[in-house]
Amino acid sequence: MFRNTVRVYFLRVERNFSQNRQNSNVAFLGCGQMGARMVNNLIKHGKKPKIYDVVPSAIQNIQGATPCSTPEETVEGADIIITMLPNGQIVKDTIMGDKGVLKNIRKNALLLDCSTTGPQVARKLNEAAQAANVRFLDAPVSGGVVGAQAGTLCFMVGGNEKDCKEVEPVLLHMGSKVHFCGASGAGQITKLCNNLILGVTMIGTCEAMNLGIKLGLDPKLLTDVVNVSTGRSWSSDTYNPVPGVMENVPAARDYEGGFSCELIAKDLGLAGDAALSINAPVPLTALTHQIFRTLMTYNLGKKDFSVVYKYFKGEALKNN
Amino acid sequence: MFRNTVRVYFLRVERNFSQNRQNSNVAFLGCGQMGARMVNNLIKHGKKPKIYDVVPSAIQNIQGATPCSTPEETVEGADIIITMLPNGQIVKDTIMGDKGVLKNIRKNALLLDCSTTGPQVARKLNEAAQAANVRFLDAPVSGGVVGAQAGTLCFMVGGNEKDCKEVEPVLLHMGSKVHFCGASGAGQITKLCNNLILGVTMIGTCEAMNLGIKLGLDPKLLTDVVNVSTGRSWSSDTYNPVPGVMENVPAARDYEGGFSCELIAKDLGLAGDAALSINAPVPLTALTHQIFRTLMTYNLGKKDFSVVYKYFKGEALKNN
Repeated sequence: MFRNTVRVYFLRVERNFSQNRQNSNVAFLGCGQMGARMVNNLIKHGKKPKIYDVVPSAIQNIQGATPCSTPEETVEGADIIITMLPNGQIVKDTIMGDKGVLKNIRKNALLLDCSTTGPQVARKLNEAAQAANVRFLDAPVSGGVVGAQAGTLCFMVGGNEKDCKEVEPVLLHMGSKVHFCGASGAGQITKLCNNLILGVTMIGTCEAMNLGIKLGLDPKLLTDVVNVSTGRSWSSDTYNPVPGVMENVPAARDYEGGFSCELIAKDLGLAGDAALSINAPVPLTALTHQIFRTLMTYNLGKKDFSVVYKYFKGEALKNN
Repeated sequence: MFRNTVRVYFLRVERNFSQNRQNSNVAFLGCGQMGARMVNNLIKHGKKPKIYDVVPSAIQNIQGATPCSTPEETVEGADIIITMLPNGQIVKDTIMGDKGVLKNIRKNALLLDCSTTGPQVARKLNEAAQAANVRFLDAPVSGGVVGAQAGTLCFMVGGNEKDCKEVEPVLLHMGSKVHFCGASGAGQITKLCNNLILGVTMIGTCEAMNLGIKLGLDPKLLTDVVNVSTGRSWSSDTYNPVPGVMENVPAARDYEGGFSCELIAKDLGLAGDAALSINAPVPLTALTHQIFRTLMTYNLGKKDFSVVYKYFKGEALKNN
């Protein structure tokens, strides 16, 4: 009897809590390539977010949101504040700066940073938020512009697990997966670890494909064998870097769209910084970083990162 | 009517041909860790191979085969001759040397080299075989000692496709997959390409796992996220290098058994040679090769190649 009472009580609390979150006010700062698409998915799911971008034209065409002219105005009265900004410095300025939003966020609100900043910045933001009685989660995403558009982003979350559970329904308006990764910064670390494997594996795959094809192998045949062998990876079976092997990948459209060299170079730089902070050796990550920076030097920074195949082939730098 | 006659005629030819192969005499040279297990699987499938190894004790305990005391004696009268030897030089000596078996192989027999030698050696062997009116296929394997024991090897075959089809039933006594990869040397190239991706991806995975774990992530959680993300690969989802994440992998038994550092270093060296022959850039392959050679220098050559995780962690070289 007592047990049942307790159970009903908790069910009621959960229901109220859940209804509360359904009606929560959301503020969204940073409506660029990623942010604008995430905002549109919030709107599709019935939210009416207050939105802001430093470039006013970025928010002009978003229907169903409340455009704001300053960050302070945007976060006023919000329960959940989401930031999606280009880098850690901009995130710090926006949140912790002299005119930072922390000064205007209401107590106990939930501040969620979806930018990729690295763990050190995330932890600093968390400390500043705690000092202002604001709850903070680092929640970088994977899936890129395509995932943001389709609402299939994957969120990697660090902070308090209860806070993560609380905000999960809102995140699932914009994505299809929420991974709780551990204490503050753990979302950032998880993203960097995944992306360094991605960069290294893609370049290894490009080296092998270029070598094999130059030595006479059929690209599709080599891919087929690798994909059922120990060389199998997402880079070969889902995002093959060789034109003609797969449809609907950047390699099929001269490496336009997708995950740009400059974005993966940014993540690899952050992974290197994180590794340096604990003196962990990351030799292949470092070399991979240098290769993407070389491509950026030759104006290929906006191309998809699988363009490394074309670079090894000797065709990437000719017209730059 | 004419068509049907032709069809029946071909069916008869195929049947005779197939029966012929069922009764073919097999010679097997090189009964080491891999070869002895492959021979045992041939015997299990009703073959009575003539066998040879330079170390007489290697063939003493193989029941059901005919032990021979010289290579020449072994290949006498054989329809199919299989070699499984430690490196290209030994293969060349055994096949093309002064006392090489080519001098004693009957005309039109099929010589199949399962050793990993690189494409240049494979093409030389093919030319020498053709000059002696012997058909040649390069057919290196993946799957290691475990695959050789279980009869689940994967053969990557270069040469004439008709010859590959002819010998496929015999190969399937020792393996579960036969990939025809193209002209002479293509089997070798395919294997090297796969294994260079494998080496690079494993080291990238080890860098990320070590970094993430040292920064506080739970190894299983990081693995789970990577395995459903863009960092997914065979190295993370099937052969994870971190002790405690998966059972039945070398990491679970202090990196004993599996694919040794010295064997993958050999393959990476051959991949580097092949790349040098056409001036193809393979920067990550080269660095990966150097890392495995460093491990060999510290007496870790016999350990499984996923021991790189322990090396990055700072625990691999302490007791060597």
